[in-house]
Amino acid sequence: MKLINKMLSGDKRACARLISIVENDKLESEKIIKQIYSHTGNAHIVGITGPPGAGKSTLTDKIVKSLLKENKKIGIIAVDPTSPYSGGAILGDRIRMQDLALNPNVFIRSMGTRGYLGGLAKATRNAIKVLDAYGCDYIFIETVGVGQSEVDIVKAADTVVMVMVPGLGDDIQSIKAGIMEIGDIFVVNKSDLFGAQRTATEINMMLDLNTNEKRRPPVLMVTSTKNEGIDKLIEETKDHYTYLKESKEYDERRQKNLRIELLELVEEEIRNIVISETNKDNKMENAVKELADKKVDPFTVRDKFLNSIKK
Amino acid sequence: MKLINKMLSGDKRACARLISIVENDKLESEKIIKQIYSHTGNAHIVGITGPPGAGKSTLTDKIVKSLLKENKKIGIIAVDPTSPYSGGAILGDRIRMQDLALNPNVFIRSMGTRGYLGGLAKATRNAIKVLDAYGCDYIFIETVGVGQSEVDIVKAADTVVMVMVPGLGDDIQSIKAGIMEIGDIFVVNKSDLFGAQRTATEINMMLDLNTNEKRRPPVLMVTSTKNEGIDKLIEETKDHYTYLKESKEYDERRQKNLRIELLELVEEEIRNIVISETNKDNKMENAVKELADKKVDPFTVRDKFLNSIKK
Repeated sequence: MKLINKMLSGDKRACARLISIVENDKLESEKIIKQIYSHTGNAHIVGITGPPGAGKSTLTDKIVKSLLKENKKIGIIAVDPTSPYSGGAILGDRIRMQDLALNPNVFIRSMGTRGYLGGLAKATRNAIKVLDAYGCDYIFIETVGVGQSEVDIVKAADTVVMVMVPGLGDDIQSIKAGIMEIGDIFVVNKSDLFGAQRTATEINMMLDLNTNEKRRPPVLMVTSTKNEGIDKLIEETKDHYTYLKESKEYDERRQKNLRIELLELVEEEIRNIVISETNKDNKMENAVKELADKKVDPFTVRDKFLNSIKK
Repeated sequence: MKLINKMLSGDKRACARLISIVENDKLESEKIIKQIYSHTGNAHIVGITGPPGAGKSTLTDKIVKSLLKENKKIGIIAVDPTSPYSGGAILGDRIRMQDLALNPNVFIRSMGTRGYLGGLAKATRNAIKVLDAYGCDYIFIETVGVGQSEVDIVKAADTVVMVMVPGLGDDIQSIKAGIMEIGDIFVVNKSDLFGAQRTATEINMMLDLNTNEKRRPPVLMVTSTKNEGIDKLIEETKDHYTYLKESKEYDERRQKNLRIELLELVEEEIRNIVISETNKDNKMENAVKELADKKVDPFTVRDKFLNSIKK
């Protein structure tokens, strides 16, 4: 495929077209991934996640600008938390990143949560593979880290930077507790705001509770709008990658993710079979009406469906 | 089953035990749902959702206290946005609801996102069925509305109350845009804060863009800590239920949800088959190693797995 060769030789527009294809066209996407797969595995994949309003875009912007000075090639996948019901991603402060987009060494892609065959996590994984084969040294995945699907996305990363911010209310507390375990580096962003030290202390306390960790994640104070703490964050990000490579964890993580990816690919195919099977002869329509009238229960219908699929 | 009869006759402890069972024990859960299913379908299910820090718990608390004066029986399922990695739900401001929990006409259940066989959406649906059969007039599902899994949970509701709040930053804008379509009633909570009117105007503007809606959702100003706007919210919630029942929408929604539920039940069973099949003879382990070494691509492995499952 001509487009693939162009991309592999560093053509940015070819890269963009390939990403569009792997996001949207199932059959073409498989052909492309099959061909580029052996070229992947070289990029350091960094997830940037945290609650709404934590300033993740600005932080990513500053990190990338700093890495560009080291002559690195960088991919950014910004996942926008629009629901599956909305059309397309609302770019919001992504607009601030426009100057980055013009840089020949930066590739930026915004993704919404709608319209990706096989789901957003799959589309993200495929886009990562293209950017990896394209030769990016770093691939940043920026996403709001609250729900399960966002967690799934960020799991594809080697290093997860968890961005917190002072004073976001009670709910944030519980989110923080929940996502502690996926953070490799913690950032208290907007650390010039009142309460930043307290937020850092709370994170440290929670991290101290987790004694079975092999590595204690650092907690960094950052004010990205003032470019404060960015260098330290980059240093820690690189150190984490070195740590992964030197320990067995790099292989363990990648293999764990491959296992998830494989299961999802198999399930996707089977789901298609289920949908086409239950749509035959108004099976689904009739079952739903009976259920609504309480003539039958969901588990009995399920077993009927399963039997007809097995045949 | 004795426990079911007790629950159906209004025994609160029996209800609690049954919910624990349907959350955690797959086989028992199916037996229970099969038996109680014909007793369900009477409760008005209300989803309370919105971004972290929007004050959803306090709002729910005030609504419930007001409905109790009408002698209603009420169920509350509070879904905590902890990740699948964390153990159990962190209760946070749920503690404020403790006085409600002691009321004989209120049943409160907190659910985390971990440890539910078949996922949280399924566990929530099962708990709703028990509370419905238990005789609740209203069942409130309170959850952070950001990720896909939260959206899935809230879809089980007849009426979705979308709680917004002034000044939560840029990300919130995109979330708002994304979840517009699942809100039946919009609340600007903490409406005594600066910027509340602007938030209301923004929501109204977005709602005006959506011209193919049969019903234009109202936007209400509420300050739940001061009990302001709660009565109006309850009135609108009841009106929405009347609207659903009088139009065809009630049946359409319930049938749509039943369709989703059925497909998920079928897929869950198939997923179990896939997992047990791919774990045979170290199939998965070997495939993952080959993938990590780039000896093969994910789609080729998937097809191999599918073929062996078909056999």
